[in-house]
Amino acid sequence: MTDIAALIAALPEIEWLTDRALVRQRSRDFFWYSPVLKRQLNGVTAAAIACPRDEAGVIRVLAECHARRIPVTPRGAGTGNYGQAMPIRGGIVLDLSALDRVLWVKDGVLRVQAGARLAAIEAETIPRHGLELRFHPSTRRTASIGGFIAGGSSGAGSVTWGTWREPGNLLGLRVVTMEAEPRVLELRGEDVQQANHAYGTNGVITEVEIPLAPAWPWVDMLCGFADVMDAARFAEALTASDGIVKKLACVVAAPVPQQYFRAYDGLVPDGTHLVLAMVAAPFVDHALPLLARHGGRLLHQVPTAEAPVPAYEHSWNHTTLQALKHDRSITYLQTLFPPPGHLALIERMIATFGDEVPMHLEFVRFGGQVACFGLQLVRFTTEARLAEIIRLHEDAGAPIFNPHAYTLEEGGMKQVDAAQLAFKRAADPLGLLNPGKMLAWDQPDWTPEAPRTHYIFGGAAGEVEEALEWKE
Amino acid sequence: MTDIAALIAALPEIEWLTDRALVRQRSRDFFWYSPVLKRQLNGVTAAAIACPRDEAGVIRVLAECHARRIPVTPRGAGTGNYGQAMPIRGGIVLDLSALDRVLWVKDGVLRVQAGARLAAIEAETIPRHGLELRFHPSTRRTASIGGFIAGGSSGAGSVTWGTWREPGNLLGLRVVTMEAEPRVLELRGEDVQQANHAYGTNGVITEVEIPLAPAWPWVDMLCGFADVMDAARFAEALTASDGIVKKLACVVAAPVPQQYFRAYDGLVPDGTHLVLAMVAAPFVDHALPLLARHGGRLLHQVPTAEAPVPAYEHSWNHTTLQALKHDRSITYLQTLFPPPGHLALIERMIATFGDEVPMHLEFVRFGGQVACFGLQLVRFTTEARLAEIIRLHEDAGAPIFNPHAYTLEEGGMKQVDAAQLAFKRAADPLGLLNPGKMLAWDQPDWTPEAPRTHYIFGGAAGEVEEALEWKE
Repeated sequence: MTDIAALIAALPEIEWLTDRALVRQRSRDFFWYSPVLKRQLNGVTAAAIACPRDEAGVIRVLAECHARRIPVTPRGAGTGNYGQAMPIRGGIVLDLSALDRVLWVKDGVLRVQAGARLAAIEAETIPRHGLELRFHPSTRRTASIGGFIAGGSSGAGSVTWGTWREPGNLLGLRVVTMEAEPRVLELRGEDVQQANHAYGTNGVITEVEIPLAPAWPWVDMLCGFADVMDAARFAEALTASDGIVKKLACVVAAPVPQQYFRAYDGLVPDGTHLVLAMVAAPFVDHALPLLARHGGRLLHQVPTAEAPVPAYEHSWNHTTLQALKHDRSITYLQTLFPPPGHLALIERMIATFGDEVPMHLEFVRFGGQVACFGLQLVRFTTEARLAEIIRLHEDAGAPIFNPHAYTLEEGGMKQVDAAQLAFKRAADPLGLLNPGKMLAWDQPDWTPEAPRTHYIFGGAAGEVEEALEWKE
Repeated sequence: MTDIAALIAALPEIEWLTDRALVRQRSRDFFWYSPVLKRQLNGVTAAAIACPRDEAGVIRVLAECHARRIPVTPRGAGTGNYGQAMPIRGGIVLDLSALDRVLWVKDGVLRVQAGARLAAIEAETIPRHGLELRFHPSTRRTASIGGFIAGGSSGAGSVTWGTWREPGNLLGLRVVTMEAEPRVLELRGEDVQQANHAYGTNGVITEVEIPLAPAWPWVDMLCGFADVMDAARFAEALTASDGIVKKLACVVAAPVPQQYFRAYDGLVPDGTHLVLAMVAAPFVDHALPLLARHGGRLLHQVPTAEAPVPAYEHSWNHTTLQALKHDRSITYLQTLFPPPGHLALIERMIATFGDEVPMHLEFVRFGGQVACFGLQLVRFTTEARLAEIIRLHEDAGAPIFNPHAYTLEEGGMKQVDAAQLAFKRAADPLGLLNPGKMLAWDQPDWTPEAPRTHYIFGGAAGEVEEALEWKE
C-alpha cells in the first residue's frame, strides 16, 4: 500500500480524485502562457486530489498529511499563471472549491469561504446588496476568491482600489496551519499580509473577509488613438480622476486589437491604439471631454453586462489569452514602469522592441499614486532572447515581476518576505505546504543573484501541446 | 410706491419677507469670520426676500426683476463665509430654501432641488438607499446643496472624492437664466463648470444631479502626535490609502484643540497635536498600524453618529468657529500647500509664524493626487498685518484663496473664469444676478494687480458685534 493509498484509506469521509487524467488536470494551471514554465512544469502532477466539503475536512486532511509527511498544495480554481497551485514536489492537491458559501454580508463587508468563485459571489451580493468585489482578475468567471488572494494581486478595479497589499482591501483571513494538530487562526489588520499572496505556502486559507464596493451599471468604452502615448496619457488621466467611478484603464497598442480581439472585429481601425475603459454609466459623459482632450475618440460603448465578450476579458492576462488563441508563440511580461518617468520609459521600450513586444498597460492605484503595470505581449523566439528582453527592461529601470518563474520571490518583489517566512516557520514547521515555492524557506540566504538549486518534481517534461481552455 | 413695493405687488403668489430685521438676517452669512469682510459687509441688506415655492415661482421673480432692473441675489441656507449670497448692491434676495425635494435616486445618482439641506437629503438617502453625499462642508446640518455647489468647493469626504471641480462629482445642474423670458437650462458634462462655484452670478440653480457614495458606519478617530509634522505625514499617508474608506484627514496643531475644542476636554494632552480622522468602521483596524508607524497614538474613538459633537464639526471651517466661540479675535486663511514641497513649506510657515497662525490642515484629493489645504487660524491684530501674513505665504509659494474678499476672483483662482463669464453674458446679459461678485464682469481686464474699483452697497458699516449662530 503506497503512502497515498494509506492516506486515502485513513480519510474515507473525504472525497478523493485518483483518476490519473483528472488528477493531472487538477494539478495544473495556466503556466503554459510561459514557454519556460511550460517546459519546466508540464510533467507536474499530484498523487491524488483531496476535496473536503468543509473546514473540518481540511483539518483532517492536513493532520493526516502532516503525520505522514505528505506535501499538500492548496488550490482554488487553478486559474493562476505561474504554477502557484501546482504540486511541484508531488504529494496531494487540496482542492478547496467545495468551500464555496457566502457566510455573511454586513455594513459593506463580505465574509466568504475561500473556494467560492468570484462570479458566484457577485451573483449573490449584487442583486441582494447592490455590492460587488472591489476588483477581480480577468478570470472573474472562473477564479476563486481564496485563489485570487493567495496567488493574485490585482485586476479590473485596481484602477480605483489598488492591490491586495493596499491596507483595507483585505480585512481578515481564516487560515488552517499544517501541524500535528492544525490550528485555526484568524489573521486581522496587518497580519493578513502574512498569508496574502503566499501561494498557500504557509497556511490554508478557508475564509476571507473583504470590503465590497457599490455595484454600478458598468459601461465598456473602446477608445481609439492615433498615438499610443496619447492613449497612455488618457488612461493615466482617467486613473487620476477621483470623481469618475471606473474599473479599468487598459492600453492595448496596435496591432494587438486588430490581430487578436475577434469580439471587436470591425470596431478598431488599422493602426489605432486602444484604451479599454470600464466606467460607471452616470460618468461616461464626464469621461468623454477627457478623452477628447487627449486626442482620442469613442469607437464603441456597450453596457458591460451586454457585451458579447466584456472589456475585462480583453484586459489583464486575458489580453495574452486572446492573443494565444491565434498565435501559440505569444507570451508576456509583467512590468512596473515606476513614476514619475514611466511614460518616457514606456515610449523608450516601444521604440526599442517594436512589434516584438507589443505594448499592453494596466493603470492602477499603488500607494495612493497612479501607477502603471506593463503586461506586454512578447513574440517568443528563444528563452535566451526572452531573458535578454527581461534584462533590458530591468537595466532600463522597469523591474519585471517574472511570470516565467514559479517561486514567490522570483515572480514577486525579488526579496524574501520576512513576515511570510516567519509565519511559515510557525504554521508549517515541516515545510509541507506547497513545497518548492518559497525560496526563502529552502534557501534562507537567497538573493536574486544566487543560483537556483531547487528542483521540480517529475523533472522537466517534454513539450506537450496544451488544450487552451477557452472561457467563452 | 417704491420699485420693491411694486415688485411685491406684481407677484402676490410669492411669499415675501419684508420685516427689516428678518430681511437683514436673511441677507447675511458668516462673513464676520473675517474682520475685513465684517467691516466691509456689515451694512449689507436686501430690500426684501422672495421665497418662491417652486421653479415656476423662481421664473416669475426673475422675469419681474429683469423687467424692473432689480438685482437678485440667490441664496441657499446662508452658511457661506465670504458674503457669497449677500446682496452687496441691494435689490432682493431669492431664498431657495422651499425648493427642498429629493426628486429621485437611481443607480447611485441623486436628483434634488437646490434648496434641500444636506442633512435632510441624507436623512432620506441613507435609510432608504444606503447612500450619502460624497462630501459635505462642516455646516452639513444647516447648509443647502445648491448653496454648497454655488458657494463652496470641498469638505469632509474630499479626502476621497476631491472637490466639485473634479469631473464626475457634479453630473448635472438645472439653471434658470435672468432674462425677459427666463430660460431653463440643463447643464451636463463639462458644462456644469459654467455655474459651479459661481456664487449664483450667472444663473439660478434650481436642481442638482450628483452621484452618491455608500453610507458607511463612520468612526471619529482622535489621533495624538508629539510632532506636528508627524501628524501631517500621517494625514497624508491616510489620504493616500486607497483601500481605507475615509472621510476626513484633518490636522489641528496644539494649542488649538486644548484651547478651543470643549467637546474634547480631557482627551488631548497639553502640547499634543491632533489628527481628526473619519474612517469607516471596518477599516479602523487597518488605519491603526499606519498611525503607529507615524508615531501617533489613538486618543479616542467614537462612532460619528454617537459623538456629542462630530469630528467634522471640528474640521474645515468649524475649526475656526470652535475657536471663535472662545476668542472673537480669531480669523483664518485658506491656503494651498502645493506638492511636492508642501510638507517642507508647512514646516517653514509654522516656524515663521508660530502661535500667531496656528496650523490647521485638510488633506484632500486634487486631480488624483494627495493635496493639502491650510485653513490656519490667525490671531488677528490689524488688517495690515493680516495682509502681510497673506503676502508672506504667497511669497513663500503657498497661494491664498483669500477668505477676506468677497469676489469670485479674489477668493478663488485669482483669474477670470472665461467659461463662467461667457455663460453670464448669455444668461444674465444685464448683470442683475448677485452683482459685484464677478470682477470679470465689472472689469473684463481685471488682473490681480489691478486696483479694485467696485463699491459695496450700503457702504462700510460700523462694527456690529455679531451673534454667533452656534450649531450645537
